[in-house]
Amino acid sequence: MTTTNSPSSKSKASSSTTAAASSPSPPTAEKGVVIGRLTVTLTCCQPFKVLNGGVSALIAESTASLGGYVASGYRRVFGVQLSTNHIKPAMLGEQVEAEATPVRVGRTIQVWEVQIRKIDPSTSSSKVLLSTSRVVLLSNMEAPKEMKEYEEKIKKYARL
Amino acid sequence: MTTTNSPSSKSKASSSTTAAASSPSPPTAEKGVVIGRLTVTLTCCQPFKVLNGGVSALIAESTASLGGYVASGYRRVFGVQLSTNHIKPAMLGEQVEAEATPVRVGRTIQVWEVQIRKIDPSTSSSKVLLSTSRVVLLSNMEAPKEMKEYEEKIKKYARL
Amino acid sequence: MTTTNSPSSKSKASSSTTAAASSPSPPTAEKGVVIGRLTVTLTCCQPFKVLNGGVSALIAESTASLGGYVASGYRRVFGVQLSTNHIKPAMLGEQVEAEATPVRVGRTIQVWEVQIRKIDPSTSSSKVLLSTSRVVLLSNMEAPKEMKEYEEKIKKYARL
Amino acid sequence: MTTTNSPSSKSKASSSTTAAASSPSPPTAEKGVVIGRLTVTLTCCQPFKVLNGGVSALIAESTASLGGYVASGYRRVFGVQLSTNHIKPAMLGEQVEAEATPVRVGRTIQVWEVQIRKIDPSTSSSKVLLSTSRVVLLSNMEAPKEMKEYEEKIKKYARL
Repeated sequence: MTTTNSPSSKSKASSSTTAAASSPSPPTAEKGVVIGRLTVTLTCCQPFKVLNGGVSALIAESTASLGGYVASGYRRVFGVQLSTNHIKPAMLGEQVEAEATPVRVGRTIQVWEVQIRKIDPSTSSSKVLLSTSRVVLLSNMEAPKEMKEYEEKIKKYARL
Repeated sequence: MTTTNSPSSKSKASSSTTAAASSPSPPTAEKGVVIGRLTVTLTCCQPFKVLNGGVSALIAESTASLGGYVASGYRRVFGVQLSTNHIKPAMLGEQVEAEATPVRVGRTIQVWEVQIRKIDPSTSSSKVLLSTSRVVLLSNMEAPKEMKEYEEKIKKYARL
Repeated sequence: MTTTNSPSSKSKASSSTTAAASSPSPPTAEKGVVIGRLTVTLTCCQPFKVLNGGVSALIAESTASLGGYVASGYRRVFGVQLSTNHIKPAMLGEQVEAEATPVRVGRTIQVWEVQIRKIDPSTSSSKVLLSTSRVVLLSNMEAPKEMKEYEEKIKKYARL
Repeated sequence: MTTTNSPSSKSKASSSTTAAASSPSPPTAEKGVVIGRLTVTLTCCQPFKVLNGGVSALIAESTASLGGYVASGYRRVFGVQLSTNHIKPAMLGEQVEAEATPVRVGRTIQVWEVQIRKIDPSTSSSKVLLSTSRVVLLSNMEAPKEMKEYEEKIKKYARL
């Protein structure tokens, strides 16, 4: 899974091609958003050729954790609780987009909302909600020194 | 992870002491249990070399869905809701075991509990709880005909 | 709390057959919203004089169930799953507002989101998020005949 | 509901410093259990004369919080997340019993499981599961001085 971003959003942390963590206008962690896209392949389908609901949960936990890591100033976060409501299925071959938005960025606890939507390449405006998740993170733990390299990588993509 | 798909896995969709949804002794769906094992590799770790919490959720959804599929008599199930509480981390290289147990097997709604534990190969008795999940399934939808092959495969493993 | 039972509350339950919360376009069940207000009294506080988090959950389940009942055309609904994330505390004496919004109104399953916010009577624009809940309902069960009276009462408050 | 406040309830809140729910071996906080009983009256029913699912959630949050308060050595706890799965309904007039058990008592985060069961006064062995909840608490915050009186009250009941 990778992440991309819409220039109109404020701060964004993305891993693949674009994105940001602190914008020219005074950035706040509350505004950080993580966006990622995924094409539904057989690997992430259950036997009925539908996106495995657990993959939606995995995407939610991953994007929220990345966002929480950036929002806490590149300190370590731990997932505490994850709740996912599956709304509609995504079929093999379809494209989905995950957007993680902070609900609350506290010193100890962060709560993120992650919505996964089906995107229609021909009509970018149409985005059907597939699932909605809430992720609770315990934040602000010290990151081990060997994570400095990872931090630099994320910072590169989480550009202004 | 779809545990029963890989013959090398220790998967069983079985009841407490004997067997599966079609055992000689009067089987009840309520007794069906799905067990799967996983070694924590880099693929399923987050950057801190700890098992990605989203992978625990994925395992929970997958094992519960498999159990629900068997418990409903090989009819289609849909994941509706997934809640995962992360209790302790698992490190790179460690072995984990997931056990999905039915809380309620209703005609329309099934609820499964999935516990993931760390197993110590040297002392099989020690099993530290890593996460506990609740999975809500909408069950009893008709399975498409082309799933007959999958059904046969599951039935083969769902017997001791 | 069953918001529409007390005439003093600001409740409105809108559905497809009635009208949505302020929509000029043809209303649909998806647009129905249930709103209720509550003053934090000692009865709903935990011993630390803070709104009991369980009361927030109770409000969420109640408003979502009322909305689901209306959205399904006054048929019976059952709560299946409730997830509440507590964001900030509300203190004794403060006023809170709950808003239940449908995420999906399916034939069998409904998912509602309920946000509870603190309202400042002096500046109605300021609304701090206190909690956010997701409620899963099993819908469309037949309502017993003796519920006709209740249906009429709700219909009166579920005004256009 | 704060079960241990009413002497008529069968509540016991046991902790490491006091005593566990019937354990001959040295008790630990992990073994602390909170039990409360409730008769389903009209007050806690939804309009269909069934126990309001939100009341189950309220009971879960309350019993878990009480347990967490004791388990942390009478320090303040905050509810962070609550997940409730409703399994079966309880009808007007029936008796229910809630049992809160710690899943993990950490320094910062506690996770409690609360099961609510229907009890049949004539056959005390029959206990049908009505709901199962998971409560996440942020623990170990300093309790205000004026809570000393409450602490003493709880300590009185938190002993067999």
